[in-house]
Amino acid sequence: MVAPLRVGLAGLGTVGAAVLRILAQQHAALAVRCGRPIEVTAVSARSQRKDRGLDLANIRWVSDAVALARDPGIDVFVELIGGEGDPAKGAVQAALAAGKPVVTANKALLARHGVALAQLAEQHHAALNFEAAVGGAIPIVRTLRQALPGNSFARVYGILNGTCNYILTRMEQENLSFADCLKEAQRLGYAEADPWFDVDGHDTAQKLAILASLAFGTQVDPDNVYIEGISSITPEDLDAAAELDYRVKLLGVAMKTPKGIEQRVHPTMVPRDSAIAQVMGVTNAVTIDTEEISPITLVGPGAGGTATASAVVADIADIARGVHAPPFGRPAGLLTSSKKAPMQRHEGGYYIRFLALDQPGTAATIAKRLAQQHISIESIVQRHRGERPLGGEYPKGIPVPVIIITYATTEDAVRRALAAIERDKVISGKPQLIRIEKNR
Amino acid sequence: MVAPLRVGLAGLGTVGAAVLRILAQQHAALAVRCGRPIEVTAVSARSQRKDRGLDLANIRWVSDAVALARDPGIDVFVELIGGEGDPAKGAVQAALAAGKPVVTANKALLARHGVALAQLAEQHHAALNFEAAVGGAIPIVRTLRQALPGNSFARVYGILNGTCNYILTRMEQENLSFADCLKEAQRLGYAEADPWFDVDGHDTAQKLAILASLAFGTQVDPDNVYIEGISSITPEDLDAAAELDYRVKLLGVAMKTPKGIEQRVHPTMVPRDSAIAQVMGVTNAVTIDTEEISPITLVGPGAGGTATASAVVADIADIARGVHAPPFGRPAGLLTSSKKAPMQRHEGGYYIRFLALDQPGTAATIAKRLAQQHISIESIVQRHRGERPLGGEYPKGIPVPVIIITYATTEDAVRRALAAIERDKVISGKPQLIRIEKNR
Repeated sequence: MVAPLRVGLAGLGTVGAAVLRILAQQHAALAVRCGRPIEVTAVSARSQRKDRGLDLANIRWVSDAVALARDPGIDVFVELIGGEGDPAKGAVQAALAAGKPVVTANKALLARHGVALAQLAEQHHAALNFEAAVGGAIPIVRTLRQALPGNSFARVYGILNGTCNYILTRMEQENLSFADCLKEAQRLGYAEADPWFDVDGHDTAQKLAILASLAFGTQVDPDNVYIEGISSITPEDLDAAAELDYRVKLLGVAMKTPKGIEQRVHPTMVPRDSAIAQVMGVTNAVTIDTEEISPITLVGPGAGGTATASAVVADIADIARGVHAPPFGRPAGLLTSSKKAPMQRHEGGYYIRFLALDQPGTAATIAKRLAQQHISIESIVQRHRGERPLGGEYPKGIPVPVIIITYATTEDAVRRALAAIERDKVISGKPQLIRIEKNR
Repeated sequence: MVAPLRVGLAGLGTVGAAVLRILAQQHAALAVRCGRPIEVTAVSARSQRKDRGLDLANIRWVSDAVALARDPGIDVFVELIGGEGDPAKGAVQAALAAGKPVVTANKALLARHGVALAQLAEQHHAALNFEAAVGGAIPIVRTLRQALPGNSFARVYGILNGTCNYILTRMEQENLSFADCLKEAQRLGYAEADPWFDVDGHDTAQKLAILASLAFGTQVDPDNVYIEGISSITPEDLDAAAELDYRVKLLGVAMKTPKGIEQRVHPTMVPRDSAIAQVMGVTNAVTIDTEEISPITLVGPGAGGTATASAVVADIADIARGVHAPPFGRPAGLLTSSKKAPMQRHEGGYYIRFLALDQPGTAATIAKRLAQQHISIESIVQRHRGERPLGGEYPKGIPVPVIIITYATTEDAVRRALAAIERDKVISGKPQLIRIEKNR
């Protein structure tokens, strides 16, 4: 049998510990599958003393991640430290500069420094694998990088954050508010103590920027992603969605438009019978549309130590087998700069929810303002609040929820119509606006 | 730039023509993605004269597929002839024996001769890629072969035949019989003139045998697959399934049991909220359960020239990139022989539909017979046929449909209980039996 692949692993948190466990438990199976054994020869982590329930007896301890990355006794460097800065960044750079392939689960590092790291990897003929950075155990990175090379990508979109999907699922199932479900998610460990990186959409944006780069060859840059989080979503929106055969999901969407690659993260109405609408709880999913073929959807566990470790091990195994593809599927020098999508030019259907004042002329005013912007209405639902007295009429003067689904239009037109409606003083409070993402 | 990869392509049917078209249209993009251009230098097909709407001006015509396979002017042989025998088999053997990598979409060839071909490929250090043989454009072969090397597969199951799924979808949507939907599918080109290879489950069995080999390391052998087709399914079964929150799908299931790898194809009740239950029409889907992580599901177009060609091109691109994994994910010599699952030992839940005679003691008799076999009932639905006269009782003497869902039991127990019930003469006709496949 050929020489083993010697792994140096930095970071022994949940994922790092799970990687060590899998590599030990599946040692024989991996050797068979890869044609050579995989051995962890050295590790590095913040504290050597901490009991992680791992047998580290035969593994060399290196106190510094950068030193480990350069260590001549390792063939591949696995970075599970996390964070976009040092020590993760410096260690990955050191490994690549030494010509060592790198496996990382670090989405923040890739989102911020992906292009530079890909260039460095290329320069030193070293692989840079990051299946675990997006979608946990779902093989989405390798699918975009290698499985559809003959296709022109049209759109890639998905549920990339389990915390948000868990909260939206619970809000719908239990008719609870965002705040209540967030608290529940925190109690159950599905949301961080500081949850805003997740619920405001930044985590999804980092992952989306990586997927967009793989699909469309854009330079990874989360600053070019339009971002809206889920905190404004109410149980009323989820109810209305259900009534209109939609479901609300926080999607990351990257799509080709005549004006360039549009990258955006926002709460989205998706048709209830679409594969993505069925994805509940902390599960992740990504749908790929290409010009040539109809959607391919991948669904699976998007987070958790074992799911993430499963993807890390697959990346290590690829290196053991000698699989080598450019990090973003093409030479880094060919990645094109992208700019932030001007959302006013976004085209699509919209869900709009108002509280309309119950007075003569309200409906006519709203209809007129939409018509002035050439917005066609696909459906409209008006719900009466309060009880209708037996044989009588609904109580007057209470604002009435009105829900409108529009056909495809531009965001600009919708914003202008809403501004006019607000000026007309026929609605109470701010209207709610949710973009619709249809099947192609 | 490095030398181009020279492709020899045998078979210019729908898929072959689509492969040529994609390789021409995506020529530049593929060169970027693979680091070298891909050129079709020679083709072979039955008739050189036929107009296929393709520009074959710069492509050499080789009259014989075997001669093309051995041609020193090609680096990779693409077999799109089809069929388990010659010329496909001989040509693939010739290419591998000459040390040339092979890409094929031929499930029948792989199902029958997969082990021998894998051995030959290994002996000559040549790749044998067959992503297009199962699930069309869904990257299921590469996912099982390479994306989950650190996982212990527990179960792989899916909708692998678009014809059957189309028929079941239409039966459910339109409340039509199997025969009517089959005719419709034939009219629309979704079913062959001779449809029995598809509707009786043989196509699914061939594909399943390939997936089982990739996941569990069994020697591919469709004769080891238990097979039941969909022709016995009635609209009443689909109605009852809906009422009980299930949907009926023709599944291929390969799973690890204490008695070995069970491979089976049969109509199956799946929970209505599972990812697989949402798959409608000609779409395919595969779900993977591993010991370590919860289900990963891949959904996408399972047939059609472009979808299949997309997978063929991905396999060619892997060869251009130098990716090389054993055909079934491990050395062919390590593939283990499997035997046909003895279905009487199958364990799971069951759907049973009887026409019970409307006479005193029927329910008691049925319940007793199930209890004698230690079968527990999860739910029971009894539907009255005919109208109840106003203020009166349901008409007597007409057999009444009774639907029972059991908890997990053995097939043996169910068969014995049904035989006893038939002997008791409390039912009319043969009972319908559909196995249930639950989420893990």
